[in-house]
Formats: sequence, C-alpha cells, structure tokens
Amino acid sequence: MLPFSRVAIIGLGLIGSSLARAVRQHMPTVHLTGTDIDEAVRVRVHELGLVDDVADSPGAAVVDADLVILAVPLGAFASVGAEIAPELSPGTLVSDVGSAKQTVIDTLGPLLPHGVQLVPAHPVAGTERSGPDAGFAQLFEGRWCILTPQPGTPESTVTRLAEFWTRLGSKVDVMDARHHDLVLAVTSHIPHLIAYSIVGTAADLEGVTRGEVIKYSAGGFRDFTRIAASDPTMWRDVFLTNKDAVLEVLGRVSEDIAALQRAIRWGEGDTLFQRFSQSRDIRRAIVEAGQDTAAPDFGRNPG
Amino acid sequence: MLPFSRVAIIGLGLIGSSLARAVRQHMPTVHLTGTDIDEAVRVRVHELGLVDDVADSPGAAVVDADLVILAVPLGAFASVGAEIAPELSPGTLVSDVGSAKQTVIDTLGPLLPHGVQLVPAHPVAGTERSGPDAGFAQLFEGRWCILTPQPGTPESTVTRLAEFWTRLGSKVDVMDARHHDLVLAVTSHIPHLIAYSIVGTAADLEGVTRGEVIKYSAGGFRDFTRIAASDPTMWRDVFLTNKDAVLEVLGRVSEDIAALQRAIRWGEGDTLFQRFSQSRDIRRAIVEAGQDTAAPDFGRNPG
Repeated sequence: MLPFSRVAIIGLGLIGSSLARAVRQHMPTVHLTGTDIDEAVRVRVHELGLVDDVADSPGAAVVDADLVILAVPLGAFASVGAEIAPELSPGTLVSDVGSAKQTVIDTLGPLLPHGVQLVPAHPVAGTERSGPDAGFAQLFEGRWCILTPQPGTPESTVTRLAEFWTRLGSKVDVMDARHHDLVLAVTSHIPHLIAYSIVGTAADLEGVTRGEVIKYSAGGFRDFTRIAASDPTMWRDVFLTNKDAVLEVLGRVSEDIAALQRAIRWGEGDTLFQRFSQSRDIRRAIVEAGQDTAAPDFGRNPG
Repeated sequence: MLPFSRVAIIGLGLIGSSLARAVRQHMPTVHLTGTDIDEAVRVRVHELGLVDDVADSPGAAVVDADLVILAVPLGAFASVGAEIAPELSPGTLVSDVGSAKQTVIDTLGPLLPHGVQLVPAHPVAGTERSGPDAGFAQLFEGRWCILTPQPGTPESTVTRLAEFWTRLGSKVDVMDARHHDLVLAVTSHIPHLIAYSIVGTAADLEGVTRGEVIKYSAGGFRDFTRIAASDPTMWRDVFLTNKDAVLEVLGRVSEDIAALQRAIRWGEGDTLFQRFSQSRDIRRAIVEAGQDTAAPDFGRNPG
C-alpha cells in the first residue's frame, strides 16, 4: 500500500531530481510527473528518464496528482502556487522541500483551493551542487525530514506524508513551523551565511592575494568554501523568508564572536581554552547520531 | 644525498608523529629521535616504533641532531627553547611546525646559541584529531609548507630545509613571517575561531536544544564542528601569539557579517545574491589547485 500513486515534482534541481530518483528506486510503481521553469533542465530530465512525464508548466504537471511537491526556491512559491491552484483536485496533498517553513504556510496556504491539504516539509539534506545531474537517490537516507503541519491538519494526512519520506530512507519529525525556522536558522542558515561572508571577506582582503587564499586553504578555509558554493538563488530566498529567526540568531553569533575577540585582545587564554574545549562533545554526538562521518577530515585525507 | 641525517622531533602529537612517519617512509636511513612532555605519549610512540630513540626530555632528544623540529603548542616554545639551547651543536638547524611564525622568531631566536640556525616552518596540513595515533605519513603530501627565514639567513640553509619538506611530499613556499601570519589568519585562524564560536553559540542558544542541533546538523552546522573539534591548547596558543593579524582580519569579518545582516533586515535580495554568487569561483579554484576534493559534500555522501 503506497501512500501516493501519482506524484508531481515542481522544480528538478538537486533536491527535486534526487526526489524523483528516490521515488523511482523505492516506489517504482508511482507515476511521476515533473517540470522546471528552465527548458534545458526539462530536456535533461527527459534524457535522464527521471520522471514518466515532463510537463511544460506547473499547472500541467499537477493534473491528477495525489501528491504535489514544490522543489523551487522559496521566492517562487507565490507564482507556482497561483499557477497550480486551479489544476489541483480535492484530496490532493501539497508539500514542499523548502528550508524555511512559516513562509510556506503564509504564502502557499491562502492560494490553495478548499479540499486541498498543505503539509510543508523540509528534508535536511543536500550538497553544494545544483541541477538535475547533481541529484542522487540516496540523498535522503538517514537524514531527517521535518514536517510542519498547521494546527487542525488531520493526523492521517501527516502520517501519509511521513510514510512517503520514511520509504525514501528518511527519519521524520513533526514540529511547529516557527520552531523549525529557529532551529534551522542555527543548524543551517547561519552556517551558510557565515560561510558566504567569510569567503567574501577572504576574497577581498587587502594585503592577501586571492592566489594565497587558494593555496593555503587547507588550513581550514576550504571547508567554508564548500557550503558557500551552494545555490545563490536558493539561499537568497532562505534569508529573505526566514529573516526574523536568522537576525535573532545572528545577534547572538555577533555577541559571541565579540567575546572571543575581547579574550584574544586581552590575552585571556583560559577563556579561549574553555570555549574551545566544549566543541568536541558536540562533534562526537553528531557522529554518534549518524549525521556525519567518523573519518578524520571527512575522509578526504588518505590517513 | 639526504638533507639531514639525524632528526629530532619535540612533541609527538598529530603533526609530530605524522612527521616521524613521513621521515621513516621517505628517508628511511635518517636517525630519528623524539620526545613528548606526556609520558603516555612517549610510551605509545615507543610501542608504535615511530622513532629510533624516545628521549625523556627535549634536551636529551636534540643531542647530535642536525635538524630539530618543535611540534609543540606555541605557548611551550619558550620553555622548550631554554631546555634544548645548551644541548645544540653548532651547525644544527632548528625549525618548527607552528601555525604562527613571527612569534617563533621572537621567542626562539634569542634563546639559540651562536652557530645554530633558525628557520621557522609551517606545513599547512592537519586534521581535527590529536595525539600520536592520529598521525599518518601522507599528511603533508600535496600540501604547502611555508618557510619564514629571517633576513640574512644563508640561502643554502633555507634550501636544505626546503629539500627536507619536498621529500615528504610537500610543496614549499618562502615568505616573510609577518606576511605569513596575515595570510594564515585569513585561511586558517579566522575559520577556526568562527567555527569554535558558532559551535558554542549553537550549544548555548535558548529555545533550541542541543539534541535538535545535533539531529539537524546535516544542514551545514556539522561542517563547522569538524574544525571546532581541533586541539584547544594548540588553538588557544595560535590566537594568543598571532593576536594582531587575527584581530585585524576579525574586524573585517565583523564588518562583512554586519553588511549581510543589514541586507537581510532590509530585504536587499540583489546584494545577497551578488555576494553569494562570488564564492563558487573560489571553491572551483581550490579544487583545481588540488587543495580539496572535487567530490560533492567532501565525498561523504554516497552520490
């Protein structure tokens, strides 16, 4: 008993195309349609055979679907929502994979017709690559997928979507959209913002050439360049749509950096040592939770 | 013709023990002595057979050596320097592997007897692990080693040390110590400081539990925990001894974060997009320069 039999995916980049591949692998009898605003992507997805039907528009893609998943940048939700709304059948479940969730409720909720249910979702998974060739079926395996249903959503609807993600190999959590947005500001949005910022700082610094930054990047900087190589459109939209939580956490980040700055200026070695000593436990817990590799240097080094 | 025939390594943690292993692999006829302040480390190095002689003290380790390499935290250089100085023979070359270089000249230089030459060195390589079991012979392969000789050091002395590092698989650069300290502040010290800071912020944030931070760390945060798991003593000393350069760069970092914060607050999507778009080129250049893997997600993902 599959939770859904006809799935439409709007947006076929890294996440959307991974989703198509994962559905194919784990639920091969599901009928898959998909579309993308970029014609080159549609052509490529057709070549790769990732879906049964490549539609020319979001509206055409969702006809007869019992699950519709938006995998487009958050800034495109309003226009995609308006396009699909007239084509959705009653009983259809609309979901997404966006990195901020209250904005999905605010933007998409009012656009959907009566009888169509919205359950926003966020699979906490990805790589720094973009586009349909970057996707792969295992992307969601062992990763968490967070569902943020609004109060009043029938439990059976939430369970049905949870079952879908579980079949793709994900672990599923359910939480309030605003809480999601705060938690992910900490674990995802702020790390990306800081990485983008530091990479920009290093590139533009007087007295140090870009060539030097590249040559000696193995000292730590190269790690930041990986997440800073992520899709700029997607991330612009994350920061614009999760503004409140990001600014709240960023205030704390700046305070904490300033405290370390002060400790360095005044030569307070004990303060530095204490702060630096706390991190290993968190690293260990992440590895133990299966959320990162135990290999030193992410396994990049031959050692 | 080996550049050195008797090498002494003071400090046998990740870097010192990797150095011992690499010398064994690439220059097996070199006589290696080593010591560490921690008796358990000395015992372990003896068990592993990493050096020919495990000495009980730095003074005993350096007798008859023609190359002495300090691989201890920068805060220990003054005491180790005082201990080895009376035992050094004229013609001995003293070097190190510390992450800041002007401090080495300032601290170690005045302690060394006449006829002993100092050429500070910094192999830009490492992992987040510590201790003699974490080392491996390939650590320096393809990585840069930066030599920072003082003006007036004979070129033949610098060439001799460069030859040593080249044989271990490193590429060698020579630069002024103060310039090194600024470049490495950007490419290594600031990334570590920010990573330590963010991990601390996340661990202590109200409204988000530590369990949530761990569960959803695959969104980006987990990357920061790797370098924040590095040795706290080593890093405390880096920040205390490279204070000026770190504070200078940190000022710019804070400015740039504030600029992004402002862009988010005022919804300036174009500014964000522009800043985020610059990073991919730098990532690509780092991969092309052989300083990081081309595999998405550092190769952690099965895709």
